Amino acid sequence: MKRIDLNCDMGESYGAWKMGDDAGVMPHISSANVACGFHGGDPATIRKTVQLAVDNDVAIGAHPSLPDIQGFGRRVMKISPQEMYDLVVYQAGAVEAFARAAGSKLHHIKCHGALYNMAANDEGLSDAMVRAAKDLGAMLYVLSKSKNYVIARKKRVPVCAEVFADRGYTDEGVLAPRDKPGGMIKDSAKAVKQALGMIEEGYVTSLSGKRVAVAADTLCIHGDQPGAVAFAKALRKAFKERKIEVAAP
Amino acid sequence: MKRIDLNCDMGESYGAWKMGDDAGVMPHISSANVACGFHGGDPATIRKTVQLAVDNDVAIGAHPSLPDIQGFGRRVMKISPQEMYDLVVYQAGAVEAFARAAGSKLHHIKCHGALYNMAANDEGLSDAMVRAAKDLGAMLYVLSKSKNYVIARKKRVPVCAEVFADRGYTDEGVLAPRDKPGGMIKDSAKAVKQALGMIEEGYVTSLSGKRVAVAADTLCIHGDQPGAVAFAKALRKAFKERKIEVAAP
Amino acid sequence: MKRIDLNCDMGESYGAWKMGDDAGVMPHISSANVACGFHGGDPATIRKTVQLAVDNDVAIGAHPSLPDIQGFGRRVMKISPQEMYDLVVYQAGAVEAFARAAGSKLHHIKCHGALYNMAANDEGLSDAMVRAAKDLGAMLYVLSKSKNYVIARKKRVPVCAEVFADRGYTDEGVLAPRDKPGGMIKDSAKAVKQALGMIEEGYVTSLSGKRVAVAADTLCIHGDQPGAVAFAKALRKAFKERKIEVAAP
Amino acid sequence: MKRIDLNCDMGESYGAWKMGDDAGVMPHISSANVACGFHGGDPATIRKTVQLAVDNDVAIGAHPSLPDIQGFGRRVMKISPQEMYDLVVYQAGAVEAFARAAGSKLHHIKCHGALYNMAANDEGLSDAMVRAAKDLGAMLYVLSKSKNYVIARKKRVPVCAEVFADRGYTDEGVLAPRDKPGGMIKDSAKAVKQALGMIEEGYVTSLSGKRVAVAADTLCIHGDQPGAVAFAKALRKAFKERKIEVAAP
Repeated sequence: MKRIDLNCDMGESYGAWKMGDDAGVMPHISSANVACGFHGGDPATIRKTVQLAVDNDVAIGAHPSLPDIQGFGRRVMKISPQEMYDLVVYQAGAVEAFARAAGSKLHHIKCHGALYNMAANDEGLSDAMVRAAKDLGAMLYVLSKSKNYVIARKKRVPVCAEVFADRGYTDEGVLAPRDKPGGMIKDSAKAVKQALGMIEEGYVTSLSGKRVAVAADTLCIHGDQPGAVAFAKALRKAFKERKIEVAAP
Repeated sequence: MKRIDLNCDMGESYGAWKMGDDAGVMPHISSANVACGFHGGDPATIRKTVQLAVDNDVAIGAHPSLPDIQGFGRRVMKISPQEMYDLVVYQAGAVEAFARAAGSKLHHIKCHGALYNMAANDEGLSDAMVRAAKDLGAMLYVLSKSKNYVIARKKRVPVCAEVFADRGYTDEGVLAPRDKPGGMIKDSAKAVKQALGMIEEGYVTSLSGKRVAVAADTLCIHGDQPGAVAFAKALRKAFKERKIEVAAP
Repeated sequence: MKRIDLNCDMGESYGAWKMGDDAGVMPHISSANVACGFHGGDPATIRKTVQLAVDNDVAIGAHPSLPDIQGFGRRVMKISPQEMYDLVVYQAGAVEAFARAAGSKLHHIKCHGALYNMAANDEGLSDAMVRAAKDLGAMLYVLSKSKNYVIARKKRVPVCAEVFADRGYTDEGVLAPRDKPGGMIKDSAKAVKQALGMIEEGYVTSLSGKRVAVAADTLCIHGDQPGAVAFAKALRKAFKERKIEVAAP
Repeated sequence: MKRIDLNCDMGESYGAWKMGDDAGVMPHISSANVACGFHGGDPATIRKTVQLAVDNDVAIGAHPSLPDIQGFGRRVMKISPQEMYDLVVYQAGAVEAFARAAGSKLHHIKCHGALYNMAANDEGLSDAMVRAAKDLGAMLYVLSKSKNYVIARKKRVPVCAEVFADRGYTDEGVLAPRDKPGGMIKDSAKAVKQALGMIEEGYVTSLSGKRVAVAADTLCIHGDQPGAVAFAKALRKAFKERKIEVAAP
C-alpha cells in the first residue's frame, strides 16, 4: 500500500490579523508546519494552532523563517550558516515548548519562504539546518532533489522529500518560478493527477513535457489559497480511491 | 552545611550591542537566567550564553520578559494571564532548545523586569506563570514572600525564593523601591553581611530596623553593575569562610 | 449651517495581512487617521493610504500608538510623558513625509487605542501630546470632555473634540466601557440619531437617561466593523437631509 | 579656498544599549547622519541626537536602513525599488519631524550599511532613493563614482560624493572590501594623507598603486571606532593648516 504525508503551513495569523483557514484545513492533513513568530504567528497563535493539531491527530512541525515580519519571510536575506542554525533552533524550540505543554512533541522542521529556497540551493545553509534538526531530534521536510535533501541523507538525519501538486516542474525536477507559464497549476483535477503520478510512480511531467523522477514523501497544500479546503478534500478522495494511505512519516 | 544558589541575569546583549560581563561573572555563579529575545538577547547571544553556562557547570534558566525591547522589559504592560502563559512558554522554549542542543537542559524560569514584579503581586499572572513552569517541567525562581511563591507552593511546582544582597527591604519582607534612601546597598561589605544574615539565619534587617523573616533559596547578583565580578568574588569568599555551599537547587 | 468632521482610522493592514475596507470607506469621510507602523501600518501601507486620502480630498492625520504590534496598541503600557512625546513625533513625522511626498500635508494627530485613553485621563501624557502637536504644527483630535482637550485649549493648540455615534456615554459625558450593557450601539438608526443630537444640539443621552452636554467637532467611524461603509452612507444621507456639512476642520 | 564636509553616523544607540561617542565626535563634524530606528536609534535617541547636532551647528541627515535591527542593517536583503522608496521616506520623515521640532530641518539622506552598498550598485534602487530625496527636498550623500551618484545628477537632485579616509580603494575608485589587505587604513597619519589628496587634488592612490580620480564632497568618519575623536581632531588640524574649510554643503 502506498503512503503519503499531507503537510500544510499553519498558524500564520499575527496579533489582530487573520490569515488562512486553519480550522478548515487541519482535519484533512497529517502534518502541520506551525509559523514561529518570525514571518507570522505569535505566542497565542502558536498555542492555538498546536492545540488544533493535537485535536486532529496531526504531527506538529516548526516552520521557521528569516526575521522579516513585514515581508512575510519572502525576501532573500544574506545570512551565515551560523545565523541559519540559530534562527532554526530558536524558532523550533518555541514551537516545541507549546507542543510539549499540549502533551505532544516536535515532529519535524520545514523552513518557510525565502529560507526554504535558500537552504535548498546552498550547501552551507543546508548543513546548518541539518545540524539544527539533529541537535533537536526533529525530522526535516525539504525540497525533493535539493542540496538540502542530499546533505540530510549524508548526515543521517531523518528527512522527507517534499513535492507540490499545484506547481510546475523543470526538467531538473525542481520548481519552476511561480510567474512562468505553467508555474502555478490552478486546475484542481490536473493538480490531483500530478500528485498521483508523483506518489504512485515517482515521476512528474516537467513543463517541457519530460518525464522526471521525484521522491515524494510529503505533499504540500497551500492553506492560504481560497480553495484550500476543497482541494484537500479532492486529494483525500483520490487517495482513498487509489488506496493511498495518508499519514505523517 | 548551609547551601545557597547564586543566580545572575545573563545574555542581555542584543545584535550589535553589548551589555554586561557574562564571561567574567559566569565562573562565580551557580544559575544563569538567560535573556530570551524579548528585552535583550537574540538567537546567537542565547547560544553563546548557554554554552558559557555549560562550560562553567552553571544551571541554565530562561529569563522571559514582556515584549518591549526598546524599554528593556521594564515598562509595566497590562497583559492577561493567558498572555503571560504564552509569553513564558514561547521564550522558555527558545532557551530550552539551545540548552538541549548544547547537551544540557532547562533548569528554571525567572521572569524579567516588569514581568517579575507584576507576577509577584498578581494572583492571575502568578497562576499563569506557575502553570507554564509546570507544563515545561522547569523550576521557578520568584521573589521571596510574593504571591507567586505562595501559589507555586500550593500547586506543588518546585520554586526557589529569591533574595537580594544589595537591596533594602520593607517591614513586610519585600523590596523597597530603588529610589528610596537605602533602597540600593552600594557598600559591598554591607551587602555581604545582609546576604549572610538571610542565608544563615533566615532574617533581614528592614530599612526601619526591624528583623524580618525571609526565605533565601537563591541570591541574585546584578551582572550589569560595574563591580559585579568583584562583588561575586567577595560573596564567594565569605561563603567559603562560613562553609556555605554554593550550588543550584 | 451646522458642520461636522467625519474621521476614520485607516491603513491598519500590516505586511501580508489585510484589515478594514479603506477604499470603501474613504469616499465617505473627511479625515483619515493613518496608522504609523507601531500597532498596524507599514511604510507601503502608509504610502497607499495617504494616496487614497489625497485622491478623495480627505485630510491626512497621523494615528500614533504604543509600540505593541502584537497587541494592536490596545494594551496599556506605563510610559513617561517624554516617551509619549517621542512616540508621537516619530510616528507623525513618518506619516507627514508620505503626505508631503504626495503633495499634501499633515493635518492632524489622533492617538490610537490605549494611548488615546491614557492621554485622555493623564495630565502629564496630555501635556506631552499637546507639545508634540504644537512642535509639528498639527491639529489634535481628542476625546470630548477629556483632560487632553482642556490642556490643548489652555496651550492654544488647535484641537477637535471627538464624539462617537455608536458608543454609550456616562453621565459625565465620557465613553462607557464597551462591555457594559448599552456600551456599544449596534442599531444603525439609533447611532445616527445619537450623532444628530450631538451635532445639532450639543447633547447626548447617557446610559442612565440623563441629558449631557458634549462638544462635537469630529465624529469617529469604526472602519474595521463589518457594516462600516453602510453606516457611513446612512450618516451622510441624514446629514444631507438636515443640511449638516461634512468637512475637515 | 578648498572646502569639505565631515559627516559621521550618529544616534546608533538603541533602548538600553549604548554605541559610539556622539557627544565626543559631534563638535568636530559638519554633518550628522542620524539612525532612524531600523538598524539602531529609537525615538528618544533620535531626539537627543538631533538636539546635539543643533547645539553644535551640525547639519542633520537621516540614515535609513533595511529593517534589520538584529543584523544592524548590514545583511543584504532583496527588496524592490518601491520598498526602497517607502523605507527611505518613512525613516527620513521620522528624523525630519525631530529636526523641525528642534527648530531645524532635514538637510540630507545617507543610506546605512547594506542599503548604502545596494543603492550604489543597482539602478532601480538608486532611482527609488533619488526619487525619495526629491520628494522630501533633501540632499543625498552617496558613494563617489557610484550608479547612485550618476542617477542623482541626471535627475537633478542635489548630491554629495562621499569618500573615506580610512578605507582602501580599487583601481575603479570604489571601496576595496574591508577584509582585503589594505582594505582598512588603521594608521591615522596615512588616513589623513589620503583625505588631503582626495580633497586637494581629487585623486586617491589605489591599493595597486594607481592614481585614480574621485569626487570628494563629503568625508566619512566612523564614530564607532575607538579612536574616532582623536582621528577627527587630527583631520581638523590638518585641514586648518592647509586652509581647507569644513562645512556642510
